Amino acid sequence: MASSTSVIPNSVIPTTVNPDIQKERDAATFNSEEFAAWWSGGEEILKFNRGVRDYMQKDVDVLEMLQLQNKSHEEIIEFSTRGAIEAAKKLRRLQEERNPGGDDYWPKLYDHQVMWGLVPGGNPFGVMYVMLVKALEAQCTPEQYEDFGKRLERFEICGTYAQTELGHGTYLRGLETRADFDPKTDEFVLNTPKISSYKFWPGGLGHSSSYCLVMAQLYIDNKSKGPHMFFIQVRDEETHEPLPGVHIGDIGKKMGFIGVNNGFLGLKNVRIPRTRMLMRHAKVNADGSYVSSPTNVLTYFAMVRTRCVIVKNNALMLAAASTIATRYSAVRRQSPINPEEPEPQIIDHVTQQMKLFPEIATSLAYRLASDYLWNLYDVTLEDIENGQYERLPELHSLSCALKVTCSTDSTAGVERLRLACGGHGYLTSSNMSNIYVNATAACTYEGENTVLLLQIGRFLMKTWRAALSGAPLPPTVRYLAEAQKNPEFGRWTGSWENMVKAMQYAAANKTRLAFKSLTNRLSRGETEGNAANHTGIELTQAAELHGRAFVFGSFTEGVTGPSSKTRSAAFNQVLENLLELYLVKETLNQMSHLLRFIELTDTDLSRLQDRLETALTKLRPNAVAIVDGFDFSDLQLNSTLGSYDGNAHERIFDAALKNPVNQRSVPKYFHELLKPFMKSNI
Amino acid sequence: MASSTSVIPNSVIPTTVNPDIQKERDAATFNSEEFAAWWSGGEEILKFNRGVRDYMQKDVDVLEMLQLQNKSHEEIIEFSTRGAIEAAKKLRRLQEERNPGGDDYWPKLYDHQVMWGLVPGGNPFGVMYVMLVKALEAQCTPEQYEDFGKRLERFEICGTYAQTELGHGTYLRGLETRADFDPKTDEFVLNTPKISSYKFWPGGLGHSSSYCLVMAQLYIDNKSKGPHMFFIQVRDEETHEPLPGVHIGDIGKKMGFIGVNNGFLGLKNVRIPRTRMLMRHAKVNADGSYVSSPTNVLTYFAMVRTRCVIVKNNALMLAAASTIATRYSAVRRQSPINPEEPEPQIIDHVTQQMKLFPEIATSLAYRLASDYLWNLYDVTLEDIENGQYERLPELHSLSCALKVTCSTDSTAGVERLRLACGGHGYLTSSNMSNIYVNATAACTYEGENTVLLLQIGRFLMKTWRAALSGAPLPPTVRYLAEAQKNPEFGRWTGSWENMVKAMQYAAANKTRLAFKSLTNRLSRGETEGNAANHTGIELTQAAELHGRAFVFGSFTEGVTGPSSKTRSAAFNQVLENLLELYLVKETLNQMSHLLRFIELTDTDLSRLQDRLETALTKLRPNAVAIVDGFDFSDLQLNSTLGSYDGNAHERIFDAALKNPVNQRSVPKYFHELLKPFMKSNI
Repeated sequence: MASSTSVIPNSVIPTTVNPDIQKERDAATFNSEEFAAWWSGGEEILKFNRGVRDYMQKDVDVLEMLQLQNKSHEEIIEFSTRGAIEAAKKLRRLQEERNPGGDDYWPKLYDHQVMWGLVPGGNPFGVMYVMLVKALEAQCTPEQYEDFGKRLERFEICGTYAQTELGHGTYLRGLETRADFDPKTDEFVLNTPKISSYKFWPGGLGHSSSYCLVMAQLYIDNKSKGPHMFFIQVRDEETHEPLPGVHIGDIGKKMGFIGVNNGFLGLKNVRIPRTRMLMRHAKVNADGSYVSSPTNVLTYFAMVRTRCVIVKNNALMLAAASTIATRYSAVRRQSPINPEEPEPQIIDHVTQQMKLFPEIATSLAYRLASDYLWNLYDVTLEDIENGQYERLPELHSLSCALKVTCSTDSTAGVERLRLACGGHGYLTSSNMSNIYVNATAACTYEGENTVLLLQIGRFLMKTWRAALSGAPLPPTVRYLAEAQKNPEFGRWTGSWENMVKAMQYAAANKTRLAFKSLTNRLSRGETEGNAANHTGIELTQAAELHGRAFVFGSFTEGVTGPSSKTRSAAFNQVLENLLELYLVKETLNQMSHLLRFIELTDTDLSRLQDRLETALTKLRPNAVAIVDGFDFSDLQLNSTLGSYDGNAHERIFDAALKNPVNQRSVPKYFHELLKPFMKSNI
Repeated sequence: MASSTSVIPNSVIPTTVNPDIQKERDAATFNSEEFAAWWSGGEEILKFNRGVRDYMQKDVDVLEMLQLQNKSHEEIIEFSTRGAIEAAKKLRRLQEERNPGGDDYWPKLYDHQVMWGLVPGGNPFGVMYVMLVKALEAQCTPEQYEDFGKRLERFEICGTYAQTELGHGTYLRGLETRADFDPKTDEFVLNTPKISSYKFWPGGLGHSSSYCLVMAQLYIDNKSKGPHMFFIQVRDEETHEPLPGVHIGDIGKKMGFIGVNNGFLGLKNVRIPRTRMLMRHAKVNADGSYVSSPTNVLTYFAMVRTRCVIVKNNALMLAAASTIATRYSAVRRQSPINPEEPEPQIIDHVTQQMKLFPEIATSLAYRLASDYLWNLYDVTLEDIENGQYERLPELHSLSCALKVTCSTDSTAGVERLRLACGGHGYLTSSNMSNIYVNATAACTYEGENTVLLLQIGRFLMKTWRAALSGAPLPPTVRYLAEAQKNPEFGRWTGSWENMVKAMQYAAANKTRLAFKSLTNRLSRGETEGNAANHTGIELTQAAELHGRAFVFGSFTEGVTGPSSKTRSAAFNQVLENLLELYLVKETLNQMSHLLRFIELTDTDLSRLQDRLETALTKLRPNAVAIVDGFDFSDLQLNSTLGSYDGNAHERIFDAALKNPVNQRSVPKYFHELLKPFMKSNI
């Protein structure tokens, strides 16, 4: 920084809490600790999480973390790797201290919310634990898992999972990497024949993996057997140099996950023993005979689980962004409401409330939807273990629908919240952009959202047809049969139950219209594929509304259902206000779909507008206490705008001062570039 | 990069055009050169622009530019400064060669679209030319301009314009920086008394400015005279060291404009001669007497101009993102539409068309709205020079409305287009994220969007009241009086004219509702400020629809009006398809507002859905040729996905290979961190 005189104190961050935010906490009508316990899943879990968090965050330099984005791509990767290894050490120590031999701290928490802030650029070993080890558990024979799975689990070696190629993503059968069986040597020979066949994107592949689980087309006698998984060593364990035939590197900077060293991998005649194909299900014998997998349900089911994780995580990201923007709105003052009055806290502007409070409510909506989804997941898992697969299509479809709507809404919400922070939301030190890029990534990975909506659309078409034939439907789509039986919605009352029904009704009617378009096209002689493609827009709309109708139901049930008896009246009141706001704003958002099928009078619509404004007013006094209840630590938020103490301006300034560029008073380029140019006048 | 064997050719980018994209160009039904000439404003301008662009881009390393985001904050700033100075030199040379003594190349083009790609992180001297020199021209006395304005114009010194403070943005009267007149020394004494008073955000302030135009509260005898402008030296011209009392530095990394060295500035008893207050309008005499400005219209008018610039630029950003995503969609293949068919170009998926084509149409919509706006600007400027200010409120309001809707729609559009590129859109080398962060910044700067919507809302309230009293209205709001006279919309026909009228009608009725809410609140005894605050949501909705109704009108006029006679039939057909798509999709988007006031039957709505799908189908064969007509060079797009030759995969791969991280085969941290950790098992 450049300062010729002492115009600035040594430390600019006060040790006291900003009185504007303290005032908010003092005036809340409920206990934010009760919220925090509820949000965490109970007092015990809250206590556990806080304990782990305190342990993990001890000695971490919060202010240093804010400098991450000023570093180069290479520096960021090194910084992130260091952070991830330090965190792994701490979790292992914690496991040793508190429950030796268990796995409830390490590695279970290595991808948990407590890691937020410790690796703000993402964990380079995340894919290794979240995907690779899980895939090996599911796909290895016991001998294979003993051979290399265990070594990964113990972090004696490091690896990643490589499926996506430069030229191929969603469509698995289009993958070009091939593994040819060579019976003479009892080996597979792996090749990525073209540039488009290079593996591209796996996290940690760039330079922190020496092993890699590769999805490749299995060929025996030059005949394709479809995609299979192969465990391949890509770097030497001692020197880390790439092995012969391996072309490996980092794909460069991305919008987000900047610390994760996503990589590329080319293979040229790389040979591995036959036993390195994962053979729990499909098998290749030494004589070249092939045994196909009896079921693909488990592969499928792993993807369902990841989508459940996304719904929960994206709801948390939205909650984190809500916390930052709400706290900032309590301490930032701007633009008098009445002339000659002082500038108010910006949270007093109704248009600002309209940016903040709906996103808080949406965080809750998806959190409760995610709870329902996880319950359904557990039930279905048990069913599957008993050989029953009936609910799997429903779970698949619901997990897709919530993954899509949650990633879409949380992404848009985080961005609205960033914009609600004005110019300072544009600073990377606000962390809003980092939350945004993490949230939006979920729109693309684990099934691109439009592709998933089309899958749900197909499921809805099947279900609609089944309902027409009178077949019983699973619970979450039963409303379709209701709508077939009673095509008239009936009277709009505006009660919460009525609003849930209205959204279901809109979803059902969009499904009906899409079904009609689809069958019309089929009857005109279009192929199924062409008809589905041409009906794509209507199918995706129906699918999205299906997801929204579910969220309406689960939020209403979560607030008004039996669990309400376990909560204080004051807290229930807050939850009801949030539910009211969510249902009203989302009903207004989807009004074009609703009005098409349901009659609302001008008075009904004015009434909704009034309810919207009333809900904002009711939430105003509790907004800060609610986001306190999300229980993020300052390090988890990693934001100059959102710290608990509310000293936003001072933290913005402090982060600016510590920016490395400011460590010299005159930049090098002045004498080399700028001055000669100004003097020369050329 | 790490490669133990030669598995990859030296150059991965083919010199030929991708056949998939060539096929698109060959099949187009119109001449994209005719589009390019029209889009540029005529053949002469197109030729001129291309000539300048070729000159400016000669010898620039396109592939090097793609590495920008891998650099550190400090490196990016140096790289950008170097690029900006090189570009300035070229423009000066061009001026010398082609029109010595003129200003049509230098500095006029220094902030023109031809600069895109030359300074992909933003021009650190942009504020100097776009704002500072203009402000000095408008606010200096002739002597002052001669004294220091000319030096800046000639780039003998460099400076910036500092208004926003850490704690104060939008509300000018809240600024805390003060300038006290000291009659004893005939000087002003400048101070930023608190951290929140620090100037914060000005582009180029960090370390590429030695002068600064500072907005500060003028105090004479400790009595405030409101905000005035002061020209202050902040660094030594020879050494560039900050002057005594000056605390100056860089604010750190932001989401975008990463090369611009936005800065902070603290002042402690910094003294400047009295003649360094800009005194063209207001004056302070040596005896301390104060003469206030006779008018603030010109200050006001400068802001109007900047908003006109934003509308045009953001329309261009959307066009650039459309070009990238459309070209990529023509060369990327994925997911068979019918089983056993090969993977199609993704542009053949209807849901993909729905992501691309509406954004192409939206680019045109705002481009034509911008043309109207600039005409109105020129007319109003002439009026003002003749002392007539009648149309100024209309222009102000329209420029605000289009700034808001264009920045909002272009931002959302760029993001939809990025998501349409799947995972690769997440690479910084796609440039989609950089276009996004540039576009979204316009939602906040030059009047935060919500603040502007509230201003427009106030204007609509005034206008509504005027119309009720029978006063004549300016042209762009005359529809409000129509709606008062004829409260019934009449029959929906779905013609383009009818759709324009419908959107106007929705805007007028939202205005009516907001007016009713506001007057109800006033009659209940609320203050004007409180009533406006409580009606904020409705006011912003009315204001937004006002903007959209205008865009409907100007797009329809631009395509169907007299200018259509100057165009070929084939080209008019393309423009009509784009207009049709825009009107239909935007009518569907705004359907909840329309259905409230206008009756549409189920058949009308089905018909709109059909029209939407038909419009996509009609545009499909011409999509690539249309974006070719936007006439961006590869360097301007600066994207691995969007190059003219369509070799997207190869360019992605090439950019990855050149990433600096890949210049060593084993990262430093392996031996220092990762290996010891894996061996230790702690």
